[in-house]
Amino acid sequence: MKTETKKKEYAVPMTMKAWVLDGPEQLRLTDKPVPEPGPAEVLIRIDAVAICGTDVEIITKGLPAWIQGGLPFNKNFTPGHEYMGTVVKLGGGVDEYKIGDRVAVEIHAGCGRCERCRMGMYTSCLNYGMNYDGHNKGHRANGFTTDGGFAEYAVNHVNTLAHVPDNMSDEEATLIVTAGTAMYGLDVLGGLLAGESLVVTGPGPIGLMSVAVGKALGAEPVILTGTRDARLELGIKLGADHAVNVRKENPVEAVKRITKGKGVHYVMECSGAPNALNEAMDMVNRGGRICLAAFPGEPVPVELAKLVRNNIYVFGIRGEGNRATHRAAALMAQKRFDAKLMHTHTFSLEEVPKGFKYFRERIEDAIKVVIKVH
Amino acid sequence: MKTETKKKEYAVPMTMKAWVLDGPEQLRLTDKPVPEPGPAEVLIRIDAVAICGTDVEIITKGLPAWIQGGLPFNKNFTPGHEYMGTVVKLGGGVDEYKIGDRVAVEIHAGCGRCERCRMGMYTSCLNYGMNYDGHNKGHRANGFTTDGGFAEYAVNHVNTLAHVPDNMSDEEATLIVTAGTAMYGLDVLGGLLAGESLVVTGPGPIGLMSVAVGKALGAEPVILTGTRDARLELGIKLGADHAVNVRKENPVEAVKRITKGKGVHYVMECSGAPNALNEAMDMVNRGGRICLAAFPGEPVPVELAKLVRNNIYVFGIRGEGNRATHRAAALMAQKRFDAKLMHTHTFSLEEVPKGFKYFRERIEDAIKVVIKVH
Amino acid sequence: MKTETKKKEYAVPMTMKAWVLDGPEQLRLTDKPVPEPGPAEVLIRIDAVAICGTDVEIITKGLPAWIQGGLPFNKNFTPGHEYMGTVVKLGGGVDEYKIGDRVAVEIHAGCGRCERCRMGMYTSCLNYGMNYDGHNKGHRANGFTTDGGFAEYAVNHVNTLAHVPDNMSDEEATLIVTAGTAMYGLDVLGGLLAGESLVVTGPGPIGLMSVAVGKALGAEPVILTGTRDARLELGIKLGADHAVNVRKENPVEAVKRITKGKGVHYVMECSGAPNALNEAMDMVNRGGRICLAAFPGEPVPVELAKLVRNNIYVFGIRGEGNRATHRAAALMAQKRFDAKLMHTHTFSLEEVPKGFKYFRERIEDAIKVVIKVH
Amino acid sequence: MKTETKKKEYAVPMTMKAWVLDGPEQLRLTDKPVPEPGPAEVLIRIDAVAICGTDVEIITKGLPAWIQGGLPFNKNFTPGHEYMGTVVKLGGGVDEYKIGDRVAVEIHAGCGRCERCRMGMYTSCLNYGMNYDGHNKGHRANGFTTDGGFAEYAVNHVNTLAHVPDNMSDEEATLIVTAGTAMYGLDVLGGLLAGESLVVTGPGPIGLMSVAVGKALGAEPVILTGTRDARLELGIKLGADHAVNVRKENPVEAVKRITKGKGVHYVMECSGAPNALNEAMDMVNRGGRICLAAFPGEPVPVELAKLVRNNIYVFGIRGEGNRATHRAAALMAQKRFDAKLMHTHTFSLEEVPKGFKYFRERIEDAIKVVIKVH
Repeated sequence: MKTETKKKEYAVPMTMKAWVLDGPEQLRLTDKPVPEPGPAEVLIRIDAVAICGTDVEIITKGLPAWIQGGLPFNKNFTPGHEYMGTVVKLGGGVDEYKIGDRVAVEIHAGCGRCERCRMGMYTSCLNYGMNYDGHNKGHRANGFTTDGGFAEYAVNHVNTLAHVPDNMSDEEATLIVTAGTAMYGLDVLGGLLAGESLVVTGPGPIGLMSVAVGKALGAEPVILTGTRDARLELGIKLGADHAVNVRKENPVEAVKRITKGKGVHYVMECSGAPNALNEAMDMVNRGGRICLAAFPGEPVPVELAKLVRNNIYVFGIRGEGNRATHRAAALMAQKRFDAKLMHTHTFSLEEVPKGFKYFRERIEDAIKVVIKVH
Repeated sequence: MKTETKKKEYAVPMTMKAWVLDGPEQLRLTDKPVPEPGPAEVLIRIDAVAICGTDVEIITKGLPAWIQGGLPFNKNFTPGHEYMGTVVKLGGGVDEYKIGDRVAVEIHAGCGRCERCRMGMYTSCLNYGMNYDGHNKGHRANGFTTDGGFAEYAVNHVNTLAHVPDNMSDEEATLIVTAGTAMYGLDVLGGLLAGESLVVTGPGPIGLMSVAVGKALGAEPVILTGTRDARLELGIKLGADHAVNVRKENPVEAVKRITKGKGVHYVMECSGAPNALNEAMDMVNRGGRICLAAFPGEPVPVELAKLVRNNIYVFGIRGEGNRATHRAAALMAQKRFDAKLMHTHTFSLEEVPKGFKYFRERIEDAIKVVIKVH
Repeated sequence: MKTETKKKEYAVPMTMKAWVLDGPEQLRLTDKPVPEPGPAEVLIRIDAVAICGTDVEIITKGLPAWIQGGLPFNKNFTPGHEYMGTVVKLGGGVDEYKIGDRVAVEIHAGCGRCERCRMGMYTSCLNYGMNYDGHNKGHRANGFTTDGGFAEYAVNHVNTLAHVPDNMSDEEATLIVTAGTAMYGLDVLGGLLAGESLVVTGPGPIGLMSVAVGKALGAEPVILTGTRDARLELGIKLGADHAVNVRKENPVEAVKRITKGKGVHYVMECSGAPNALNEAMDMVNRGGRICLAAFPGEPVPVELAKLVRNNIYVFGIRGEGNRATHRAAALMAQKRFDAKLMHTHTFSLEEVPKGFKYFRERIEDAIKVVIKVH
Repeated sequence: MKTETKKKEYAVPMTMKAWVLDGPEQLRLTDKPVPEPGPAEVLIRIDAVAICGTDVEIITKGLPAWIQGGLPFNKNFTPGHEYMGTVVKLGGGVDEYKIGDRVAVEIHAGCGRCERCRMGMYTSCLNYGMNYDGHNKGHRANGFTTDGGFAEYAVNHVNTLAHVPDNMSDEEATLIVTAGTAMYGLDVLGGLLAGESLVVTGPGPIGLMSVAVGKALGAEPVILTGTRDARLELGIKLGADHAVNVRKENPVEAVKRITKGKGVHYVMECSGAPNALNEAMDMVNRGGRICLAAFPGEPVPVELAKLVRNNIYVFGIRGEGNRATHRAAALMAQKRFDAKLMHTHTFSLEEVPKGFKYFRERIEDAIKVVIKVH
């Protein structure tokens, strides 16, 4: 009996440990049946899962899409969407992946049957969340509307997987989907970034990844703005040419200074600050483009006149569309930037609440907190 | 009991009449089980189906995609892809259509699980035909790789349907998919046709539809080239501003004459003539674009130097992607052009061989021969 | 001596009558030298010029771009940008137009030397207004930064002209540039409108033209919202399928009602109402797109969360880029809609102040007020 | 007096040495007046100029565009288009560059007044070469239709310049325009290359640059095919993951082997081999795209059926459009690949014929032969 063959067989248990969400802020570790992969799906043994700001939002408030079905509270729902793992079982017709493959995930499978999915805009699926309460649209967005990664196993559609190379750690691989979101944002801005100027506002995980991916694609200068020097320094390590602490210098003036008055071609807004869009409109030149990957919780005053007069386009992005995750994964596999710099803490599956505490309170300047499951 | 409610119920039999393809040129009328719609699918009672040149190709030679599985000969396969009908049964989760809806079809459902389908390029599905002989990819292209419309019933994915308005006849509705192919060709050429100049070469069904759709979108001038005056006259009725009989005038010179030496922005090549691409390259101006919707059977000499020197783009198109069928159907519903002019003959399901004879031999100048099934 | 030849010769005087802007609200009719066309330019005898809302803005407040040079007040500047006329003199190298040609105009020539112009985004010219006070960038935007059409003659770059067919009146031809702006807005929304659903908010001239052009391209349904029934009725005549008086029905609810809860693909915002963008975000479905062709004067609260969560794109547009004017002119020449319905009043060059009074106070429900110059 | 100021002043002579083309193969070194920069132009002191295959074509055969005006033979025309130098004099309104700036060039200025230039497609200028013999369209394509770089000075439009950083040698900077052509080819293929598979056929300068730029943008795998091992090894150094000697292995089979039967997304055809397009169509998967940057001299047999059936797009490219040169220059300034590896020989301005001999006969495996002028 060969070792190789042996390596490819995994004993899959009937039940697994999984965190479920009873009510706002009420995560509970429990036992669940291990799910069964259907056609075009695989079962993944989750090896690691990272905590994202959206997880906090879901845990505290649910998500708008849930309102309809009364979810996710008290519905046995398992959150967690930034995970990676090992393929341990194949659904019908699957030969795209084989047992033993290490994979990272995209969140949005879409439904495959609405107009947006049909056209490739699967993160804008019109049946988003419509697979409950009598609806049966087949939509999946693991960790958002279908069970996610704070568990031992999860089912994923083959469309939502990317191969993880041998020389990439589990922890780093959890960051692939974050890089995919950044890549998607740069896609909608036009994608041809070499030698084009880019401001990234907000050095959270998506902002830092936008810096890294933007620089990997040749953007220049890449200017990062934020409030914390430690994060800005990390941004420099990931490829930013300039870092601006907005507590020390007006960011619009800084951008004008750095670009000799010209402004930039593109802004990736990743801060969610109330005035960020207005500032972005002052940072770009005529015909410039702004991607919003973050947003303030409340309506904020926006100078729409500027948007119209300067022919500015503003792109809201949900998730990581356009197969961007695949492309971002390739840049990471090629070691174009060191995503591991963003990984600060590791906890076990039992320690999920502790992990959330570190993430939310930014204890020890936590950025990416990873739960190592297997 | 209301008439309305009654109208929406259809007694679906267990078996149906269907033509199957035993061998090259060997179509046989037989009985088959009525298929069952799965999730996201509906059962359609076929009301009418048109004969297309590709049907002839399939019946005589099979299609390249079939080689792999040994199909379609002696496989109980039913050809026919230009059909329309009435929804008589709903698969799981279907509320996009309801029983009694009149619908026309797109051919390509795609597999929904490959990279091209994921990105919305479902007519370029990488699993094309891969649903036989142990493969189970879920690809459907009715009449090409899965059972089609020379039968009483067919199953369609909801993605492949377009509503047919009450005031459109069954016969006209069979032409929607042809219009969709023409629209898709114009899409890949850029889609912004108003006031732009367009040559359509070859007045077959797709060529005539390209004239009609192009004119409906405002192209000007629309120049149609061909060899038969009757077809060219029909092109004029469908919207062509100029018709050029290539037996009487060199088509390149005619285009130069009509455009005062400028050439045109776009060529839709629908003739498959051996020299058509070379002529098209002489018809477009620098930076012009050419869509190939037809092709010669053998390799032909092409002046690639012209293509490179003049920055010309050539787009091969398979089928009717980009939801073009939906948009073409809307133009037809709005009566922007009279597609019925292309419908020349009608036969019954039993008369399929006769229909093919008329179509192939162009008896009575047949263009679109329609089989009226119900 | 032939009449034809005679027709092509125009006696061009040395001086002309022209309105100039002394200060806010201070238009004065004076004499100016007739300008001389340079290379790639022509001299146009202005036959008719329409009054636009932006003219009012310029006359009362100047324009942001002017701040730099202290213009347009007391600078001998002639406003007016929606004009048409007859080519009476050719600059160097011009054979694109000949003397006697009737032409309508685009506003933005651009500078031809900045990065945006180089890439074809001439309405986003980075040297906008930079042809004064020591700068010499060659930018032209007649009626905005260079002399416009409330005068007997004007100089235009050949790039900014579109042919006017014989069977179109001078008055109608002044509306071509408005149609071009609407077309440009539909371009940035994707341009493939047949069978796609479109809301136009605000039945001013650009809104009405957006209805007309959108319908001509096959959009369906086209829903127009506004406050005045007369304008809404005009919208119906120009092609709207539905008109919603927002004083009688909540426009978001009306759109949901008409689209059976689905929302629309596209919104053209032409009202400038403070809440219009928020409402538009509620009207479009996930992945929908919004074009802003109008804007409120002050910053307004915007629910950016909706924009991000629903993957919505918002396109601010300046002017009439992408050669849209040419394409819109073609639709008008083809009589696809009756733009003349928007023309309500005509005055002489001497009566410009009266024309503005009618336009601003909407006397006799004035929509398009045209000054007939020659 | 400061050194800095002094450095920025250049004594420009009245006459200069320049090679002119008397007849086919007849280059002659002569004296010419130094040209004068007009508005939006600068005078460049040429520091270095590389020899390109197209130079050979022009010198031996002229170019199609020349036929019209009888050029370039016996017209005092100076060829050479891959040059770089120092800005020594500014035309009207120029502040984009200052005296002393080191710059590389794009070839195509375009005319700025035709439909294609207006839309940003300046390499497809409809007035290409139309600035002679009574035409006055202002088109420039230095070294093709206007005087080029085998001389001491040349005039360039500011649109055609890219800054050269201090740490890049003159010799390397002459390769920027070649990199720009490669980048433009990758642009038309879609531009989003990270993790996408790319075949480059033909390891000439553009092919090698396509490897380098493609890899810099993250393409994977990058497969280079060719006939000479030395060139293939250079391709590996520039970033190719695989090199295939077509004399040793069938290139289509090699691509299938490397991609495990999938084929690639993109092919950049840089060989001009007669069967290259057919092979490329066998290398790409369904929906794949092919850019032709080279072409055979004669018409060649092409299997158009494959193009249509597989939904393949073929893009001919002329030159280096879409501001690709600027973006390629940025990648080179960022040292993403070592373009210097392609520079093999250097000669003086007097030695131009010797340089051509080395280039044409590939003496000492010459790739890029650079003429150092200043």
